[in-house]
Amino acid sequence: MTDRPARRVALLVEEDFEDRDVAGSCDALRAAGLEVVIVGPVAGTGYRGRRGELTVTADAAAGKTRQRDVDAVVIPGGYAPDRMRMRHAMVDLVRDCVDAGKPVAAIDHGAALLISANVVRGRTITCWPSIAIDIKNAGGRYVDRPVVVDGPVITARKADDLAFFTDAIVKAVTGASS
Amino acid sequence: MTDRPARRVALLVEEDFEDRDVAGSCDALRAAGLEVVIVGPVAGTGYRGRRGELTVTADAAAGKTRQRDVDAVVIPGGYAPDRMRMRHAMVDLVRDCVDAGKPVAAIDHGAALLISANVVRGRTITCWPSIAIDIKNAGGRYVDRPVVVDGPVITARKADDLAFFTDAIVKAVTGASS
Repeated sequence: MTDRPARRVALLVEEDFEDRDVAGSCDALRAAGLEVVIVGPVAGTGYRGRRGELTVTADAAAGKTRQRDVDAVVIPGGYAPDRMRMRHAMVDLVRDCVDAGKPVAAIDHGAALLISANVVRGRTITCWPSIAIDIKNAGGRYVDRPVVVDGPVITARKADDLAFFTDAIVKAVTGASS
Repeated sequence: MTDRPARRVALLVEEDFEDRDVAGSCDALRAAGLEVVIVGPVAGTGYRGRRGELTVTADAAAGKTRQRDVDAVVIPGGYAPDRMRMRHAMVDLVRDCVDAGKPVAAIDHGAALLISANVVRGRTITCWPSIAIDIKNAGGRYVDRPVVVDGPVITARKADDLAFFTDAIVKAVTGASS
C-alpha cells in the first residue's frame, strides 16, 4: 500500500448524521493512509451531526461524484440516511459502486440507503435493529453481528462497532488489515 | 356523537416526533370532541419534538395500554417512529387495533410503525417519500396523495396534510366529518 497512491473513500453526509460514525470513520480511514472525501448534496456546505458535536463541510457534491472517482463509499448512520434516500445522486453512486464491485460500507441506519439503491436482495446485512424488518422485506438476510462483509457490501450495527467496521473497509480497499 | 361518551384516541409519542403532527392532531381531535390520551414508553415522562417546539408528557405507558382501552391510534411522524418500532408494546397496540378494525392513523414517517406491526401487506398507503420503497417492499401499494383510508388504516404524507388527516380520523372514529 505504501508505494501506490492513496485510495479515495467517499464519506456521504447529510443533516443529522450520527456524529461518532463520521468522526470515527474519518479518523480511522485517514490513519490507515486512505484519502477521505466528504460528499454531500452541495459542495462547500456544512452538515451537522444529530448530536451537535460535529459539523463537516462537503468537499464534493454527490451530483458531481461518479463511481470512477472513488474506490469506496461509506454511509454513516443517524437520521442522515433518511435524507440521503431522497438524493438520487447518492442512491445512484451507491448502486454504481456495488455494481462495479467497489466496497460500499453502511453503519447503523446507513443500510436504509442500500435498500433505496436496490443492492440488498440476497445479501447478508447487519444494521440498527429498527430497520432490520426493512432489510428482510427488501430480500436481505438480517443478522445481529458487529460487522458483516458480503461481496462489496460491508455493514455494521452501530457506532460501538466502528473499529470492526473501519477495519473491514481498510481491508477491502487495500487488501490489508489496518 | 353529542349524547355518547367521548371517544378515546391514543396518540403515540417518543423522542423526536414531528412537532406539528402532534400539536395539530391534538388540537383538531380535541376540537372535534375526542379524548386524546398521550401514550409513551413511560407514563409521566416528557417527550420532545425534533424541532424543540413542543414537549408532551405521556398520560399512559404503552405497556399498560390495550386495544380495548382505546377507539383509535394516531402515529405522528418525525424520527419518533424509528424509536417506536423497537417498542414492542407500541407495535402490539397498532397490530391489535388494526386486527380489531379500530382506526390506526399514521402520518409522515409514522407508516414505518405500520410495517413493524405487519399491517401493510395488500393495503394502499401514503407516507413520507423516503420510506415509500419500504412500504412497497412490505407488500403495500404506495400512492402520493394527501390522505388514504384503507379499511382501518389511515395514512397521510406530511404535516401539510394534517387537515385531511385529522378529518379522516374524526370521520372514522365518530362516523361524521369534522
